Amino acid sequence: MTALENAWLDAIKWDANGLVPAIAQDYATGKILMFAWMNREALQLTSETQQAVYWSRSRNKIWHKGEESGHFQKIHEIRVDCDEDVILLSVEQIGGIACHTGRNSCFFRKLENGGWVTDQAVIKDPKDIY
Amino acid sequence: MTALENAWLDAIKWDANGLVPAIAQDYATGKILMFAWMNREALQLTSETQQAVYWSRSRNKIWHKGEESGHFQKIHEIRVDCDEDVILLSVEQIGGIACHTGRNSCFFRKLENGGWVTDQAVIKDPKDIY
Repeated sequence: MTALENAWLDAIKWDANGLVPAIAQDYATGKILMFAWMNREALQLTSETQQAVYWSRSRNKIWHKGEESGHFQKIHEIRVDCDEDVILLSVEQIGGIACHTGRNSCFFRKLENGGWVTDQAVIKDPKDIY
Repeated sequence: MTALENAWLDAIKWDANGLVPAIAQDYATGKILMFAWMNREALQLTSETQQAVYWSRSRNKIWHKGEESGHFQKIHEIRVDCDEDVILLSVEQIGGIACHTGRNSCFFRKLENGGWVTDQAVIKDPKDIY
């Protein structure tokens, strides 16, 4: 790539660890599926492959979402926020499961009467996914 | 509050700076409005006041969203993710403006043909807000 072609990547304000937060939203339902992190390479790969690629902070490596589970995220749109330090992905969630617990979304608990209450069913047992 | 009443707060896994990411989503449109951070006090205040309260990393203090602009965020739902380290707020955005640029959402630029393209209008000039 030429310098000009990378201008959109150069615009991103990476944090001290070279990362930015990334939010994945279902393009059809509008549901927030998950939250993860990206480094420059992950964002570039996300754009190039049109599938979500993150940076795994626990494994300290590039994480092509779905590489183990088959639950890839097909990119519909890539957005950046006003401060150029947060990425928002609009995705088609293959298999309908974004969460490692086997649920559609990682945000399956809401605060109710002072406690976290689960209101989303497990679609597939994680034992059968990984 | 008793220890029992704070159990939902104790469940949150704050980062090294005592913060967690917080995503604000419009309860009616499903649009992601903004991304910010919360410390324990901010999350507790959000629940108690039923308005979004964040931690401003730039000003290093509690930030009651809307305190200057009047653009408060009324809470409809508070969610936590599978790892208990990200908060998702479903909110009613008072004034319809979440972004300091005067737009509905902070995510007003999308990647198109290798560049960031603005596709959201300014609703109110920031000079007239702050």
